[in-house]
Formats: sequence, C-alpha cells, structure tokens
Amino acid sequence: MSLKIKSGRFFEDFFLGQEFIHATPRTLTEGDASLYTALYGSQFAVNSSDTMAMSIGFEAAPIDDILVFHMVFSKTIPEVSLNATANLGYSNCIFGTPIYPGDTIFVHSQVIGLNENPDGKAGTVYIQSQSRNQHGDMVLDYVRWVLIPKYNTSSEPSKTNIPQLLTFVDPENFILQPEWNFKAYETELSGSPYLFDDYVVGEKIDHVGCTTIEEVEHKMAARLYQNPSQVHVNQQRQLTSNGKRKVYEEHIVSLARAMSFNGLANAFKIVAINSRFDCNPTFAGDTISAWSEVLATYAFPNKYDLGALRLRTVASKNKGNAYFQYKDEHCKYDTSTVLDFDYWVLIPRNMRLSVSRKNL
Amino acid sequence: MSLKIKSGRFFEDFFLGQEFIHATPRTLTEGDASLYTALYGSQFAVNSSDTMAMSIGFEAAPIDDILVFHMVFSKTIPEVSLNATANLGYSNCIFGTPIYPGDTIFVHSQVIGLNENPDGKAGTVYIQSQSRNQHGDMVLDYVRWVLIPKYNTSSEPSKTNIPQLLTFVDPENFILQPEWNFKAYETELSGSPYLFDDYVVGEKIDHVGCTTIEEVEHKMAARLYQNPSQVHVNQQRQLTSNGKRKVYEEHIVSLARAMSFNGLANAFKIVAINSRFDCNPTFAGDTISAWSEVLATYAFPNKYDLGALRLRTVASKNKGNAYFQYKDEHCKYDTSTVLDFDYWVLIPRNMRLSVSRKNL
Amino acid sequence: MSLKIKSGRFFEDFFLGQEFIHATPRTLTEGDASLYTALYGSQFAVNSSDTMAMSIGFEAAPIDDILVFHMVFSKTIPEVSLNATANLGYSNCIFGTPIYPGDTIFVHSQVIGLNENPDGKAGTVYIQSQSRNQHGDMVLDYVRWVLIPKYNTSSEPSKTNIPQLLTFVDPENFILQPEWNFKAYETELSGSPYLFDDYVVGEKIDHVGCTTIEEVEHKMAARLYQNPSQVHVNQQRQLTSNGKRKVYEEHIVSLARAMSFNGLANAFKIVAINSRFDCNPTFAGDTISAWSEVLATYAFPNKYDLGALRLRTVASKNKGNAYFQYKDEHCKYDTSTVLDFDYWVLIPRNMRLSVSRKNL
Repeated sequence: MSLKIKSGRFFEDFFLGQEFIHATPRTLTEGDASLYTALYGSQFAVNSSDTMAMSIGFEAAPIDDILVFHMVFSKTIPEVSLNATANLGYSNCIFGTPIYPGDTIFVHSQVIGLNENPDGKAGTVYIQSQSRNQHGDMVLDYVRWVLIPKYNTSSEPSKTNIPQLLTFVDPENFILQPEWNFKAYETELSGSPYLFDDYVVGEKIDHVGCTTIEEVEHKMAARLYQNPSQVHVNQQRQLTSNGKRKVYEEHIVSLARAMSFNGLANAFKIVAINSRFDCNPTFAGDTISAWSEVLATYAFPNKYDLGALRLRTVASKNKGNAYFQYKDEHCKYDTSTVLDFDYWVLIPRNMRLSVSRKNL
Repeated sequence: MSLKIKSGRFFEDFFLGQEFIHATPRTLTEGDASLYTALYGSQFAVNSSDTMAMSIGFEAAPIDDILVFHMVFSKTIPEVSLNATANLGYSNCIFGTPIYPGDTIFVHSQVIGLNENPDGKAGTVYIQSQSRNQHGDMVLDYVRWVLIPKYNTSSEPSKTNIPQLLTFVDPENFILQPEWNFKAYETELSGSPYLFDDYVVGEKIDHVGCTTIEEVEHKMAARLYQNPSQVHVNQQRQLTSNGKRKVYEEHIVSLARAMSFNGLANAFKIVAINSRFDCNPTFAGDTISAWSEVLATYAFPNKYDLGALRLRTVASKNKGNAYFQYKDEHCKYDTSTVLDFDYWVLIPRNMRLSVSRKNL
Repeated sequence: MSLKIKSGRFFEDFFLGQEFIHATPRTLTEGDASLYTALYGSQFAVNSSDTMAMSIGFEAAPIDDILVFHMVFSKTIPEVSLNATANLGYSNCIFGTPIYPGDTIFVHSQVIGLNENPDGKAGTVYIQSQSRNQHGDMVLDYVRWVLIPKYNTSSEPSKTNIPQLLTFVDPENFILQPEWNFKAYETELSGSPYLFDDYVVGEKIDHVGCTTIEEVEHKMAARLYQNPSQVHVNQQRQLTSNGKRKVYEEHIVSLARAMSFNGLANAFKIVAINSRFDCNPTFAGDTISAWSEVLATYAFPNKYDLGALRLRTVASKNKGNAYFQYKDEHCKYDTSTVLDFDYWVLIPRNMRLSVSRKNL
C-alpha cells in the first residue's frame, strides 16, 4: 500500500498529550444548509429565516448546530477513528460562536486519555477536539472516546490514564452571545406558544412524526460532511451480519433533533451536549420515532428573557409511536432504542412571567 | 399526547373568517434553487442564469415559481391540512413579486368557505392563503379547498358557505414588474426560437421526456419545503393499500413544469394558476410523461414585447410516450392521468411582429 | 411530433465548420458546490475552504473542475448528442479561468471532423466545444467525438475529415493564473505532506476507498447539470439488456476524482484532460474503486512553487480493492474497468527543494 494513503492509526500509535491538526478546513454555505434541510426537514425558525434570526440578535440564519457538529466531527476521523471499532461516548460538548454561511471551520484535537483493554487487543482513546472559525473564535469543544484495535497485539501496554468526565455541562459554562435579545421573538412565527416557563422537569413529549431511512440519505449526509469513513458508502467491504450497511449514527442525531421541533419549537439552539449513546445500529428501511424528557431547567440569573432546558431525546426504530420506554429494569437499552441524547437547549422566556419572578 | 404537539385541526375547528399566521418564515437561498434543479432538472434560462434574468429586468435569477409555491403551501399545512384526507382543488392563484435568493417569505391564511358533507363525517374547508416577502410585497395569493374529517361526528353542523371560485384568472389581474423589458432577450440562449406569436389556441405539445420517480426524491422535496405531513416520509404509518408511500403531489407539478421546457422553453414565468387537479396517486417506480395544450393566448394591450399563454399541462404515469388523451368520454380522468394543471405563463413576443400588428 | 420539440440531430445533419450556440447559460452557485460534495464527498481543501483557496491566490473556493466540465458538457447535448449511440472519446481539454460561485458559463461548439461508417448507417462527429464566463474569459475548451446514427441511411455519404487529435496536452498550453502563489500553502490543512517532488513516474497509488452507486445519485447529478439525455432518468424507455438504467458516465469521473484525494490530496486542480474512455457501463449497485499511476511529471521552468503530474486514474467495478490491472495482454480493457482517465493536475512544490534544484 502506498505510504501516501491515510490508513488510520492503531491504539499503540496514540500517546497522552498527542496533538492533531485536522485537514481540511471547511467553508459552510447556504448550499450545505439547504441540503441539511432536504435530508432532515428541520423547521426551527431561527435556522430557517434570516429575519427571525436577526430579530433576536443573530447576524443571519445560523447554520444548524448539529450540522456544525457533524462537519467538525468528520474532520477528526482521519487522524482519530479511521480504524475505530466503536464510538463509545461523547461528553462536555460546548457550542461557542454561531456559524453563518461563509464562515470556515478549523479543527484540532488532543489525546487526553488512554485505557488499554485487559486482553491487550484494543484500547479506548479519549480525545478532546476543538473547532475555531476563521477569526479564531471557539465554535465547538467536546470530548469523545473510541475503541481502537491494536495492530501489534504484542506491543508494550500503554500507561492507563482515564480522564475525569463530567456527566453534564454546568450552565455557567454556556457561551451566550451578548447581542442576543428576545424582546422581539414572535411565537406566532416560531411555530409554538410554549416558552421556557411552560416546561417542567419530568415532562415527556412524544414528537409524533416518524421517518423511514433510505440508503442514499445517510450516504449523502456522510459525504456532505466529508466523512471519509468507508462503513457507510461501500456495500461490498463493510457489511454487517445482516448484509446491510449500517446507517451513519450522526444521521439519527439529526433526525431526532429535527423531529423534536414538534413539541419544542422554541428550543432554538443547542448550547451543550452532556452525553450521547448510539445504543443500537439502524439500517435502511428502519422507521425512526423520537420523544424527549425534560431532565432539568435553568433560568439565567442575569438574563431574564432566556432559559435552558436539559433534555433527553430518545430515538427508537420500528416502534410506530414512540412509547416513553427505552431501557429495561436492568438499565439495559431496549433493542429498539437507537439513540440516547442528553443535551441543553436555549429557549426564550415569557418576559412578563420572568420579570415578575425577578421582582419577587 | 402532549398539548405542545401540533396534531392538526378537524372540520369543526374551523369557522368562517378565521385567520392563521403560519410558522415559520423561510429564507430561500441558492442552495434551495440548486436542490430543486437536482430534483427536477428544470432548464428554464431565466431561473438558471443571472445574466439571462438581468437581461430582461430581473435583479438576478429568480427562484422557480413552483418552488415558491411549494414553500408557501407547506407553511399552511400545520394549521390547515394536517388531518386532511384529500386536496380537492386550487384556484385564483396569482404570483406577485419575484423571489430572489436571500428573500424571506411569510404566510397567512383565512377561512373563506365551509361545506359539511351530508353524512356529517367530514367537510370541505376553503382557504385563501397569501405570502409576502420581508418588504411586505405580495408574493403569492391562492385559494385551495381540502376535505377534512370531523373529530366529533355528533357535533353541530356548521353553516354552509361555498365561495365563488373563478374558473380562470383574468389577465388583467396579472402582476407584471415595470422593470421587465424583452428587447435583449436572446432565443439562442433560451433554448428555443418559438415566442408568443408562434403558439396557437388548440396546439398540443408532447414534452417527450419521461422520468421515473425514486422514493427518496419526493421525500427530499417534501423536507426541503419543510412540509410536516407524515404521509410521504413514514413507511410504517401511512401505507396505501398497495403497501407503498404515496408520492407527494407537489412533486408531479414540479416534474411536469420542468419537462415542459422541451416545447415551451421561452415560457419563462408562471404568472397565475387557474386550477389544478391531482387526478390519481403516483408511487416510486412510476414513470411520468407530460404534454401541454394551449387553451388561450393573451396579448398585453400596452406591452408589445410580452404575451401570455393559458396552458393545460397533463402528466400521466406509465404510458411511455404521452398521448393527448387524459379523460374518457364521460369526462372522467383516465387512471393513468395524474395531474391536470391549468395555468398562465408569460412568454416574450417577437418584437417586429407585435409592433407591426400594433401599427395596423 | 411538434416542431417545437428538440429531438436531436442525425449524422447527415452535421457539416464541417457548423457552429452551435448552446442554451442555456448557467450561473454556478454555492448550492451546486454543496450538492456536488454530497454526491461525491470530495475533500480537496482548495474547493472546500475559502481560506485555503485565498491563501494561494484564488478569490474564493473555486467550483470543482469536474463539476464545471459536467455543466459545460451538458449544455452541448441538445445540439450535438441527443441521438448519439456512443461517446467515443475526449481530448485536448484545457481548463482556463477558475469559476467561482456566482459566475455564469456560456457554451458554443464547432464541428471539426466527420467520418461516416463504411456501412452507411452512422458516423463519428468530432466537436470542439468552448465555454466562456460572463466576462468572456475562457473557462474550458475540449474536443469530443461521438457516434451518431443516420436517419436516412440512403442519404449521400458525407466527406470524410478526421481531425488531428493530440494524445496529450503540452504543459506549455496550460493556463495558470498570475495570482497563484504557494508560499503560504499549508500541508497540515490540505490533508497530506506529499508534494510534487514526492511523486515519481511509474508510481501507482491505490485510493483504497470504494463507493456503491445508488440509482438516485446519478439521476440527481444528471439533473443538477441540466443534462437533457433521457437514458439516465427514464426506467421505461431506455433499458439496457439487463433491465437496468446505465449510470451517467460523468458520475464515474467525479467519483474517481473524489477518491483520488486519498493519495493525491495536494493535486488541487485539474489543468487539462488528455483523454478519457468510459470503458464499460455501470449500474446501480455496482461498487467503484480507483487507482492512479503517475505517467509524467512537469516542473514549470519559471514557477518554482508549482508542478504538474500527468495521471492515469482507472476506475473499476466490483473488484473490492483495486489491483493495478485494467487491460489484458491484447490491450483490451478488462470487463471490470469502467474508466481510463488521463489528465494533468497541478500540485505545489516543496519550496526549499525546488529552489535548491534551481540553484544547481
């Protein structure tokens, strides 16, 4: 094989503190935003309309947060996970400055932890990745850990170093833009009258819609993100035992977020991701449904027009209507559960209500 | 079911004069235009080329009229037709100011008629919808009527009020832009030498091309338009009796218009829709052909470089070449007829010819 | 059939020196670029990132060269090859001024050769096509020859006139932009450290990735390019003997170029195409792999930061990993070989190396 080919690192190729600058920078455009809409049908008003976005202080309709995540994530694959056998988890993911059409993202990463399996055949690599835009502003920062095989199983075991991982992002670390202001936010145009104060902890929302996955959809998504992984585009080399190609997991996250519009239409921005588990694989022909639970609420102490909801959004396959069950009594995911996504969204407050509370 | 979910109105939820402001405003972009081209392959020069559009007085290549229609139409679904069992018709549809990439559309509607079925199980709702751009200029205005079931079939019958519907739009109501001027219109670049005066009433044109529909195409279209209807994206819940998903009807309108380029290349703009009937459903795998008949011609009294053709474009499925037949002797649509579309297009005149007529 | 329909020329309709102005001009946009990425997943940094492109003297990320080629090519079909039975070859293809989002291409052609088959049933037409942008700058110039049937097989045989065809483009004819400068080219961001001087004649590179073709992908591609040919979109009328639609050949060229990123990441621009043979048809479900061979290298005498590689990129179907074989001992293409593409790419030089050589 030519040395000029990127064939991916094995577990023994990683060391603590190792840094990567990822190729290639990517300018995100209105074309990317349209394709994303065509693939998932997301209807969030702030991402759909320049006027709606500008009414609350954005420069223009920002690129969907999950699309930004996918673009950043895909850049890390050649150096990090081309040989990974499993994506084990994500945490401490913080979204920074909004990305507008025309902005360019750059991505770099650092190895922050290593843990070789007892059998010496593979190990977990913990990576912190960060993206900046063309002005150097922080766009996205997150940790993920992946299982990567060893090439030489007789090689020296690496030192074990498991980083401290937060179970959720502290709202004090959220990055808000000073220009944001929700006085002119119109719920008639956003698609729902329900604002921050209308949601309570423990509330569950069935997002009702279902979507059947076509093979070409997740392939187009993976290529749009310039994801170089072979598993999703090559029918011959990467079959699972059922003879089908695994659907790109990122695809499910996008579907679930788009579906959540029905019930969470004012949750205009994902501000942080606490954790994410891709519980079971999906295949073309599977029909995906989704529901969310409000895990926590957070009212900003100095910003009376904005709140945050911590959500768990669960996606299931082939269950028709989603029921609010996803784990069995032993806390094991149901075989129909495909995504357990724990994240924080921003949502405007009802001004009169929040001001009156302040005055109490 | 959560109250926060949009689950759609039933017939008894509508009343005469009722108004809706539809979410969410939508900025149309070059990305939307490219996807539309990739889905339908339309070749009309004014929509394809900034230079061609500017040569006749547009600011840039305008967004395809039918794409604007779909975008506006989709916004009305949550308030109007989420529970509709049939789209019965369209009329009095007038296109106003052109939409360019970067413009944002807003949509509102009013109930202008109601007609409960004799069996008390459903009724027809007549809706007038209007779209404006970010400057408040009228973009599109049309009436449609839909069959919507009653939820409570023992509820009080509503007052019957059937609005007067025009069979066709009077050319005096067309909205032309004062900047338009066809002196520099080049037929070598538009794809055909045939202008207004080359078409005669009764003339029929077989558009020759056929297109086979793939499942993913109409799904991508529906999502691009942010159409929240479940029927097109969910394989499990919305099967028809043959086990297939019905193709989104708007998809056929777009295909037929794109095909009509071959024979009507200079019909650069749809200025009004007189009526539209989605005669039979289509499914993935069906092959669509189309032909048009010139129903009327209209020469503008004070604009010697522009005329209008009233066209009937008929789309059929699985007929190979389209024959010019679409109804039987009892005026019933053939089972192969899928679209009967009656509309007005603008088409430049041969300047020398129209000027000489003026001088007669 | 209506006279207003374009039904294509037959062999006897062509004459030497005949000129065509092709409809319709096309403005290329960021939307087209995004769709192209979603269809092929190309990762070349200069096409992906405004910052990377501007760092070497482009105004912005230019449109992918092969996308420009497809757009130009498709415009020529109505006048040239609607009735063609085979695309026989391409040569002397030179890329000129870069195309940026917002630029409009115009295309014209001339018949430069004719050769009737001995059986009098068809003949080869040689066409030189040229595209210019809205400023009149040359964008693309190439020769192709196609086999076109005679309509009237008893018509007078045409005079035979076979043009001289170059086997490859002389690098002295390459069109370089004076603004280009590679001092700030960053290989950490481009995805590979390997520059011009790292490649040697005879070197072969397996691009490793494979991609399975879906029906809808090549249809979307053909429509995006406004290719009016029926063969790719119509399941009923244009079946091959195996009952499948032939994949649009241009699709394979794009796939092969996108795959070549892995091994040739710094080959940022195609500057000329020497020849191209679409050796065997492909169908949905086929899995494509690709490899390249360096046929020649060219160091520009007065530009020490840039070189050119002459490459043969071969695409095969259903071979798993591509082996470096594509013809048998009689120089006949293997049945698995689908593309033999001979072209020149530009690639930056390692500055220190090339300067020191200059000083020798």
